[in-house]
Amino acid sequence: MTSTRQPIFVILAEGKLGLETSKTAASVVRYLPDRVMAVIDSRHSGLTAQRVLGVGGGIPIVAALAEAMRVSGQPPQALLVGVANRGGTIPPEHRPVLFEAVEAGLDIWCGLHERLADDSELAAQALERGVRLVDLREPPADLPVGTGLALQTAGFRVLTVGTDCNVGKMTASLEIRRALTECGVNARFAGTGQSGIVIDGAGIPVDAVVSDFVSGATERITLQAAEGADVVLVEGQGSLFHPGYSAVTLGLLHGAMPNAMILCWMPGRKRIYAGGYDWLEIPSPVRAIEAYEEAMRWAAPQLNSRVIALSANTYDQSEEEARRLVEEAGRATGLPSTDPVRFGAEPLAEAVEEARRAAD
Amino acid sequence: MTSTRQPIFVILAEGKLGLETSKTAASVVRYLPDRVMAVIDSRHSGLTAQRVLGVGGGIPIVAALAEAMRVSGQPPQALLVGVANRGGTIPPEHRPVLFEAVEAGLDIWCGLHERLADDSELAAQALERGVRLVDLREPPADLPVGTGLALQTAGFRVLTVGTDCNVGKMTASLEIRRALTECGVNARFAGTGQSGIVIDGAGIPVDAVVSDFVSGATERITLQAAEGADVVLVEGQGSLFHPGYSAVTLGLLHGAMPNAMILCWMPGRKRIYAGGYDWLEIPSPVRAIEAYEEAMRWAAPQLNSRVIALSANTYDQSEEEARRLVEEAGRATGLPSTDPVRFGAEPLAEAVEEARRAAD
Repeated sequence: MTSTRQPIFVILAEGKLGLETSKTAASVVRYLPDRVMAVIDSRHSGLTAQRVLGVGGGIPIVAALAEAMRVSGQPPQALLVGVANRGGTIPPEHRPVLFEAVEAGLDIWCGLHERLADDSELAAQALERGVRLVDLREPPADLPVGTGLALQTAGFRVLTVGTDCNVGKMTASLEIRRALTECGVNARFAGTGQSGIVIDGAGIPVDAVVSDFVSGATERITLQAAEGADVVLVEGQGSLFHPGYSAVTLGLLHGAMPNAMILCWMPGRKRIYAGGYDWLEIPSPVRAIEAYEEAMRWAAPQLNSRVIALSANTYDQSEEEARRLVEEAGRATGLPSTDPVRFGAEPLAEAVEEARRAAD
Repeated sequence: MTSTRQPIFVILAEGKLGLETSKTAASVVRYLPDRVMAVIDSRHSGLTAQRVLGVGGGIPIVAALAEAMRVSGQPPQALLVGVANRGGTIPPEHRPVLFEAVEAGLDIWCGLHERLADDSELAAQALERGVRLVDLREPPADLPVGTGLALQTAGFRVLTVGTDCNVGKMTASLEIRRALTECGVNARFAGTGQSGIVIDGAGIPVDAVVSDFVSGATERITLQAAEGADVVLVEGQGSLFHPGYSAVTLGLLHGAMPNAMILCWMPGRKRIYAGGYDWLEIPSPVRAIEAYEEAMRWAAPQLNSRVIALSANTYDQSEEEARRLVEEAGRATGLPSTDPVRFGAEPLAEAVEEARRAAD
């Protein structure tokens, strides 16, 4: 999958490159391999993306920006920041790399809460060198309060939801889009987070929106993506079970007003993701389905929005164990169940098509 | 109830003064009557606040700022903006009043999403006249992602929740604080919205916080208010059933981590508040209780947070009908039930004290 809208990237993932530890880097490598000429992580210098991430083919991993600039092939046009501290700030030790990139004539793309444009020194240097600082997490200024307008789209709305954050909601949405597109369905993706926006070239970073406007922002991108589409795949965020991000998740539910939901989960993860939540167990898919369907009944009881399939992320399991976990969850919930990356997204696409036919 | 932290206000409520139509104006008149010298609404010019709102005693309602400046007694020190368009902008027809106030040497206090400081013309004139523009909805810049830290407060955490927005959550919290304080309990209020912040002189406007930080902001004010307190009364916002504001509400639940909740409702209102939601019925108290207790189980199953009492807003009902509705809801839910403004907050305060004893 390539796009002409994105520049050729070097991705900064120093000290973090991994499927779980640098989501943006890993997903841009997965979905825009032709736009990535190198990834910076000195821990894996000399290896390929394929070797470290299982995707990305021969994209080289390098120790520093200077080394990336010497890699043969298409010259890079932008540095994509793929590392963050908790809360979305740029780790101070990586700030010099941004200056180095500007000096080398690269634009900088960044999807963190901390804005490049707010760094006056960096902004001044970018101006002088004539390069752009692209803050992907800058939402539009004129967002509305949500009013349920998404209920009126002609296209069928599908939202990915999760037992936790960082379990594969964007990936599931993109894989379902691919599978539907291959069947001739006009399926569109509505990006709601930094990675999805880089990959699709459009969207609104809803977690950067002032909380009164989260559902309104989601409503707007759902309506935009729905124009002329048979199916709109809205990228989910966070989880109703995550104490830090549940607000964003509920805003997405009530803004997107999904006709159907796909539950994303990670069988190998037992506690809520990242630091500070060791006391909180991740619910089973059965329990999570109850919660999401209940939350949709609050703002749209007439919609009868249901979870129609399960999308697992089993990258940390053996193939045999992965198959067992996926099948067991399918039996427990009575729903189609797959790992779309490992075993294909067709069961999810078929579930969407079946639900769409049933709703007609 | 007075405070020395607030200036003497003139409140701008032109065309909107009413318990439901200008919440900030009505609640500041109710809780800070000694700090309000006049209210502007030409529709009711010549009447008193008591006559129009049922609170505020002899506070005069005037037709224009010039008239307010001539009212005898304490001269005003600030104009409080108590009118808004949907989405939180200042109606353009009222902008001249702000300039008039600045010219008269008044500070301006405003709790809308639109910032006074972003109006360069107004900011320049304020600077020249040496008056302050106070944007109440400007959140702190360094908010954390929520991590459930509020679970650790020594004080008992009580959150007001609602079947809809604008049903009396702030009022319930303030009335419970008063009733508990009268019994010698050290009860503190944690303000989360513009009116609560004006009245209490502290707080964070959580609906103006970027959505990733809503629960973190709530966590911070809960922890601050909890220091040395027996009971923390966290002001609720919005409703899980409101498609526009449900995100804010869930962030509050998972940030405040309430030990107990008070459900606020308005028996006379049948459809979700304000424009655009005519298709959406407000749930019964029984149904709303289910929803709030379920939402708390998602992020804190061990807490067993329950709704412990009902607080009705019956200002639009006859006294007889109000009593009937309050009693009926009490029977249907098996919970203490009152209208704290009309019939006293004691049943709510007693429910808090009983739940606190049971948790010890």
